[in-house]
Amino acid sequence: MKKKNPEYIAHLRQVMAEHGIDAVVVSGTDPHQSELPPAHWRGREWLTGLWSENGTNGTAVVTADKALCWTDSRFFIQASRQLPGTGFSMMPLDGPEAVDLIDWLTENLNEGQTVGIDGMTFSISYAQRLEQELTDNGIKLNDAFPLFDYIYPDRPAQPKNKLFIHDEKIVGETVASKMQRIMAETKAELANAVLLSALDDIAWATNLRTAGDIAFSPIFVAYLYISDSDKVLFIDPEKITPEVSDFLTKYGVRQLPYDKVCNFVASLPKETRLLMDPANTSRGLYDHVGCTPVFGGAGIARLKSIKTDTMLRNLDTAMEKDGVALVRFFMMVEKEFPTHRLTELELSRRLRALRLADESCVDESFAPILGWNANGALAHYEATEETNATLDSDGILLVDSGGQYIYGTTDITRTVALGTPTAEQKRDFTLAAKGTIALAVIKFPVGTRGSQLDVLARQFLWNDAKAYYHGTGHGVGFFINCHEGPQSIRTQENPVTLEPGMILSDEPAFYNEGNYGFRTENLMVVEPWVKNQYGEFLQFKTVTLFPIDLKLFDTSIMTDAEIKWVNDYHAMVRERLTPLLSSEEAAWLAEKTAPLTK
Amino acid sequence: MKKKNPEYIAHLRQVMAEHGIDAVVVSGTDPHQSELPPAHWRGREWLTGLWSENGTNGTAVVTADKALCWTDSRFFIQASRQLPGTGFSMMPLDGPEAVDLIDWLTENLNEGQTVGIDGMTFSISYAQRLEQELTDNGIKLNDAFPLFDYIYPDRPAQPKNKLFIHDEKIVGETVASKMQRIMAETKAELANAVLLSALDDIAWATNLRTAGDIAFSPIFVAYLYISDSDKVLFIDPEKITPEVSDFLTKYGVRQLPYDKVCNFVASLPKETRLLMDPANTSRGLYDHVGCTPVFGGAGIARLKSIKTDTMLRNLDTAMEKDGVALVRFFMMVEKEFPTHRLTELELSRRLRALRLADESCVDESFAPILGWNANGALAHYEATEETNATLDSDGILLVDSGGQYIYGTTDITRTVALGTPTAEQKRDFTLAAKGTIALAVIKFPVGTRGSQLDVLARQFLWNDAKAYYHGTGHGVGFFINCHEGPQSIRTQENPVTLEPGMILSDEPAFYNEGNYGFRTENLMVVEPWVKNQYGEFLQFKTVTLFPIDLKLFDTSIMTDAEIKWVNDYHAMVRERLTPLLSSEEAAWLAEKTAPLTK
Repeated sequence: MKKKNPEYIAHLRQVMAEHGIDAVVVSGTDPHQSELPPAHWRGREWLTGLWSENGTNGTAVVTADKALCWTDSRFFIQASRQLPGTGFSMMPLDGPEAVDLIDWLTENLNEGQTVGIDGMTFSISYAQRLEQELTDNGIKLNDAFPLFDYIYPDRPAQPKNKLFIHDEKIVGETVASKMQRIMAETKAELANAVLLSALDDIAWATNLRTAGDIAFSPIFVAYLYISDSDKVLFIDPEKITPEVSDFLTKYGVRQLPYDKVCNFVASLPKETRLLMDPANTSRGLYDHVGCTPVFGGAGIARLKSIKTDTMLRNLDTAMEKDGVALVRFFMMVEKEFPTHRLTELELSRRLRALRLADESCVDESFAPILGWNANGALAHYEATEETNATLDSDGILLVDSGGQYIYGTTDITRTVALGTPTAEQKRDFTLAAKGTIALAVIKFPVGTRGSQLDVLARQFLWNDAKAYYHGTGHGVGFFINCHEGPQSIRTQENPVTLEPGMILSDEPAFYNEGNYGFRTENLMVVEPWVKNQYGEFLQFKTVTLFPIDLKLFDTSIMTDAEIKWVNDYHAMVRERLTPLLSSEEAAWLAEKTAPLTK
Repeated sequence: MKKKNPEYIAHLRQVMAEHGIDAVVVSGTDPHQSELPPAHWRGREWLTGLWSENGTNGTAVVTADKALCWTDSRFFIQASRQLPGTGFSMMPLDGPEAVDLIDWLTENLNEGQTVGIDGMTFSISYAQRLEQELTDNGIKLNDAFPLFDYIYPDRPAQPKNKLFIHDEKIVGETVASKMQRIMAETKAELANAVLLSALDDIAWATNLRTAGDIAFSPIFVAYLYISDSDKVLFIDPEKITPEVSDFLTKYGVRQLPYDKVCNFVASLPKETRLLMDPANTSRGLYDHVGCTPVFGGAGIARLKSIKTDTMLRNLDTAMEKDGVALVRFFMMVEKEFPTHRLTELELSRRLRALRLADESCVDESFAPILGWNANGALAHYEATEETNATLDSDGILLVDSGGQYIYGTTDITRTVALGTPTAEQKRDFTLAAKGTIALAVIKFPVGTRGSQLDVLARQFLWNDAKAYYHGTGHGVGFFINCHEGPQSIRTQENPVTLEPGMILSDEPAFYNEGNYGFRTENLMVVEPWVKNQYGEFLQFKTVTLFPIDLKLFDTSIMTDAEIKWVNDYHAMVRERLTPLLSSEEAAWLAEKTAPLTK
């Protein structure tokens, strides 16, 4: 089928000419800098054709004679499949061939030319750098060019889904308490009011959620303003039920329409010192600010990352429900595999149905990465009709998936061997799994950063001249985003220290391109361990509940301590899940959690 | 004995009053930001009384009614011993009670008051921050207040030691080649000339050395200017022999007197874009710059950190010589220990004599840290007449020492048990030594930073609720400074990646305060390992040659691979050193390198 993207590009060029724009930079995100924006703000994916259910990271540039789409290494293969015929060429955002987008603009435009952006979809920080470098080169920036208003006739509307209250009994903290703590952080940064733009911060602060604004995440489109004397939620009135309205009123939160936020910040008096995070507040909104801006807000994101004890108790419930769904899923896979007819897409559908069978599960927490053999070697694979593989012989199945339960967000990867794995496969699986264990068992002093611990997960692969190149652990929200900052365990430096109550994933992996991929991922909670004369130490508690495939372990390269860890973990999984299972399921689980021996 | 420091303070206050200075900030370093400055620039140590042979890190502040000396946690204990009676109080530079010196000034001075500094002894960066924060608070900075010219009558003269040539055959690179590479780095930073202030950079660039300017380091006091058309070494003419003069002339390097550098930079034309490292170029010099300054220079420090193959071959020779000296030393210790009369100071003297017995050893590379029992638990201990311990019963001796050989710089720590170590001591020693081994054996992809690997050295202690709080590895120069940047293996983030040819120490430790300290330190060279489809991997090669005390290993907590590493390492030590030893020494070494078994 002929692609329509070249027509979109032609139309865009016509509109650019009418507005005196020589190059447009097309944001891949929304006014809240969401990782995965609502459909209304997925114009870059529509324009370029680089699209996936979980979202694709990227920024496009269109000039009179070029149409380029920058994306990162996770999407290089996908771009090579999706971009041909669209008129767009791929530009690498990272890796050895990386091209800086802003440098490209300054090198390819002439003095006196104009770059247009929709300022509402670029962060203050990014737009600031863009403007500075363009200005240094005599190029102008027009930050009020809302291109999709002109060229995207069937643009999806802004979402209207109703909000619901995330029970304070599950959350363990009232909105009043959260707002008080937000104000304390705000004052610590010498501001007297704060405007929250990040949708996960707003969902956390208000104990409100929705379904459908953003795929796989129960957050909703809004802004939140808080000062000692006023609290305002900027939101589409259609999203508010009477119950939610009463709830907001109870906490002194007024409602104003979403699109009134710019007027509101324009009308604030000079004495208002308004805290805004320049990384997730839009340039378009900032252009309206009439009061005194204060840039900061890391302390507020940190509040959200530290879960209450009540949340952590509920997360155990979510993990049990998730474990039960996975027992049913993998039992089914094992039973039906001999037909050699199962496909990735069919399995994805059935996994979704098994999770959503529990009424506390509102959605999956992302589109499952379910890859058979070579597809499992693509770290961010998503099965499509074109790539959909059939499990038609012995092989390796990688399943990375999760659920949005009202009791917490899950994210788990298991890789299973169907049939008999080779010795090489067992070695590769085990080298990566030893990393999962080494990270799970480390104790560390207060003040330790995730980047310090990352190598523990990689060391066994490295010593075998192997490696994976994605992060080892991301932060996880509580019935919010599956990817949550600021905490992480990555190669890249991140100054955030690990604190009790944070949730992080532990997902070392190994990919043998063209053949198979292995990844074992558990979620872990940071908790206190020991305080003595040598320091105050923390540890991780692994909270995910599902067996790791015993067939894939090469015990000859495992220490006794590693084998014991697997057996202790499996004993816990069996103990926690068995009471929730049928006797047939319990028998299957018992077999899958039998002791591993050398 | 009554201390004279209160008199110095009184005199300083009188001079301050005469010059209209309300607070003086006293630098602990020289115009080159040396870690250990020549005696001429150790005025802060003279003034405050906080002094040691290896230097003490610190900055003092004197006002009309306060005299304060900031220092870091390595010197807290020493400050508590040395400062009483001097009139100075200690202020913590780091740790939980840290006080920022500049913040202290802005909080304790009034608008309109003046802070005085000797601008020649503060870096551009530090003075810039100082000036900014003072100005923001309405306080003036007088950066031309050379206080020691007024108050230090017996101030040691600037050093006059003769230079000598560091043989190009040992170095493996001519001055011409180095200067060419420096100019390439200079142009890469868009400058067309460079002024080197850091004394190690200058020694490296000129293949010249001296003895005596700075304790424990063969570097010399100078500045070096390089452009395509001119090369100038600013140096005291008395330091130049006819041979060195010819050598410099051969490479087109003119000589000008050291104190002409300010006039020289003042006279450079505007078109000269002069590269200066703001972290080691002085504010005083910068005040004179007439041309266009360019701040940068990290690339030049990096050149120095990557050693040539010739250097690395010669380093093996230095290690052999060092190993022989240490065999003689530790044999003597073992032999004479039963007298129970050996003291720390006596052992330090004899260790120095044994190293300097080799004519290629110009000096020790730092004052040895030689600590018996509780003294060994002080990470930066230096024995003095007051603390000098006698080895009068069973115990633990920690010896951290090194030599400046013309074939390279050594730095080694060994801890030995005299008599029978306890089970707890063996466990603690082994937990730290397992860290030394884990770091020594890791393979890692190109692009890895030292901070990523640091945890490998700490993990076993952490998992036992123990820790050490200093760096794991510092860069090491080649017959230059024993502590060399920019490479390091530390908890703190350092963006510098590890590159083949870099030398680093590997020195995990454990300190049981009041009882004993353990540290095993080897030097390692980064070298290529394997390149395959998963990446390009590097590894460390351990180059230090001396046995690790077999009596201290608790093999019950060691893996087979760790025991094999110890045995392989000891076999290498035995093979390399035996041909250089007497038969009695060889027999001793054979015993010390006997295979370790479970």
